[in-house]
Amino acid sequence: MTTLQNRRIVLAARPHGEPSAADFRLETLAVPELKAGEVLLQTLYLSLDPYMRGRMSDAPSYAPPVEIGAVMVGGTVCRVAESRNPEYASGDLVLAYTGWQEYAVSDGAGLHKLGDLAHPSLALGVLGMPGFTAYMGLLDIGAPKAGETVVVAAASGAVGAVVGQIARLQGCRVVGVAGGTEKCRYVVDELGFDACIDHRAADFPAQLAAACPQGIDVYFESVGGAVFDAVLPLLNARARVPLCGLISQYNATALPEGPDRLTLLTGTLLKRRIRMQGFIIFDDYGPRYPEFLQAMSAWVAAGKIKFREDVVSGLEAAPQALIGLLKGQNFGKLVVEVAKV
Amino acid sequence: MTTLQNRRIVLAARPHGEPSAADFRLETLAVPELKAGEVLLQTLYLSLDPYMRGRMSDAPSYAPPVEIGAVMVGGTVCRVAESRNPEYASGDLVLAYTGWQEYAVSDGAGLHKLGDLAHPSLALGVLGMPGFTAYMGLLDIGAPKAGETVVVAAASGAVGAVVGQIARLQGCRVVGVAGGTEKCRYVVDELGFDACIDHRAADFPAQLAAACPQGIDVYFESVGGAVFDAVLPLLNARARVPLCGLISQYNATALPEGPDRLTLLTGTLLKRRIRMQGFIIFDDYGPRYPEFLQAMSAWVAAGKIKFREDVVSGLEAAPQALIGLLKGQNFGKLVVEVAKV
Repeated sequence: MTTLQNRRIVLAARPHGEPSAADFRLETLAVPELKAGEVLLQTLYLSLDPYMRGRMSDAPSYAPPVEIGAVMVGGTVCRVAESRNPEYASGDLVLAYTGWQEYAVSDGAGLHKLGDLAHPSLALGVLGMPGFTAYMGLLDIGAPKAGETVVVAAASGAVGAVVGQIARLQGCRVVGVAGGTEKCRYVVDELGFDACIDHRAADFPAQLAAACPQGIDVYFESVGGAVFDAVLPLLNARARVPLCGLISQYNATALPEGPDRLTLLTGTLLKRRIRMQGFIIFDDYGPRYPEFLQAMSAWVAAGKIKFREDVVSGLEAAPQALIGLLKGQNFGKLVVEVAKV
Repeated sequence: MTTLQNRRIVLAARPHGEPSAADFRLETLAVPELKAGEVLLQTLYLSLDPYMRGRMSDAPSYAPPVEIGAVMVGGTVCRVAESRNPEYASGDLVLAYTGWQEYAVSDGAGLHKLGDLAHPSLALGVLGMPGFTAYMGLLDIGAPKAGETVVVAAASGAVGAVVGQIARLQGCRVVGVAGGTEKCRYVVDELGFDACIDHRAADFPAQLAAACPQGIDVYFESVGGAVFDAVLPLLNARARVPLCGLISQYNATALPEGPDRLTLLTGTLLKRRIRMQGFIIFDDYGPRYPEFLQAMSAWVAAGKIKFREDVVSGLEAAPQALIGLLKGQNFGKLVVEVAKV
């Protein structure tokens, strides 16, 4: 029997609207002894992502909710601390989905060896789910052509930053949308977008229209709300709208007041022959992950795709960091450093 | 100078809501003399289609509006009555877009020879724009697989009837939606759909759900409104929604009252990874018309695709027939027999 203790964060209550600290609970349990075929994983990095808000609710969604009292889910980079599985050796780095905890026992299912990745946390960002989401959503659904105008919501975020840089590599005019001057400056100066509009500006719709004199051919949607409302009238005939998230809506507890604009949206899709398509990256494109990883690793190595991480320290910081993420307070891919590499 | 008189129907006023007879005006003018290179076309059949409501408005749409005082637009089957163009001989049948009038002068641009078509009016229906819309929307955007459930709005109409029959040929379970018992019976008994639900029934949403025990994989949309509202909660993950029309909305003069369900739609597209795509058949698929014509002619000849025409007589009957079409009063592809073949 090991005396190792596992600290973990469980869902204490389902949030109504914005999550609060009271919706989470930190627990400490003994780590169980390994059986034959199992490995003990120590979490190094935990990824925090907007989709987690959905898992905290029991409304019907694309994945089952986290049960009350269960460990919060999440992608992780782990080190094999102990192994009774011949496939894994102590010290191996793996990509896992062990959630908000310091240790987890696994039989090896669903683990991916990371090899000698120089910066293992990137497997949660530009080389992981967010980068893959950007790559497939833009190239497969958005299908941008050189000279077209691509607008990217949450442009300084983990997905948006990659979307815009790939679109630039395709020869597109790329306009980002982000919250605040600092993020907008980063998007243009560091990431090389042609423009970035602050959605907090009072005249945001007019600024966006001015930045898209030829209209919008691809809108990469992850936000919804007022950003989508400003984009909709600017969409060109045959525009494509890949839809990977709607972060502005996740904390909503009821539909907004009328009028009912459902018919405005369907009418616009019809008149302008627009394709709008939701997708969940690993469900819809899982088999193409190797293709993505090869292309993106080369771009990153060549300095063609830049990225930024927002690292918070310690498992106990995760709840507040997720709450901030849902308000747009992070800057770059948000990860929790749970243990030192 | 010929003494031939042309009767034509022009747009007298832009309708607010439902069109009325007063929005149209019948005029009689002398037919002009032909110049070198021109042909005189006599209209045999005029197609009436829901999209015409849009052309009567000056709201932004995918095509410019008909000007006040101008001839109402529309697809026609014409006979060459006189020719000063070496490409055409007197007596040739052509597919044209000469609108609501008995005669038109053309320089040959945009005409398609119909050869010895046994039933030339079919070039306005199952072998023309409606059939082509059904074929491409279902097969290219809907991409149905054998065993999937396909729901078809306006199932007894010119487009819907063909959509459902092609889906049956693909091995799908096909559920139609139509207005009234007679249309529903026709859709099942004559067209071979697996089921057809009357959208006028008080418990229409429950009946539709019962007819789709496996959910809906493809919804071919041409109606909007209450039919779409009943379909939305039944759409499966990865469903496809080709969108060729929204007839229930064409006469609307304002958005419906709230709550605002725009986010309900975008949230559903995201969570269930749905593709929704508007299209305008000849704009988006024009070059594939020959492929369609070959496939559909073979199906029609083999009796695999059935169709029904709703023929009204005389140009002066067109306004009332279009008004009825927008209320769902026609039964089959609506054409006006302007002159006897």
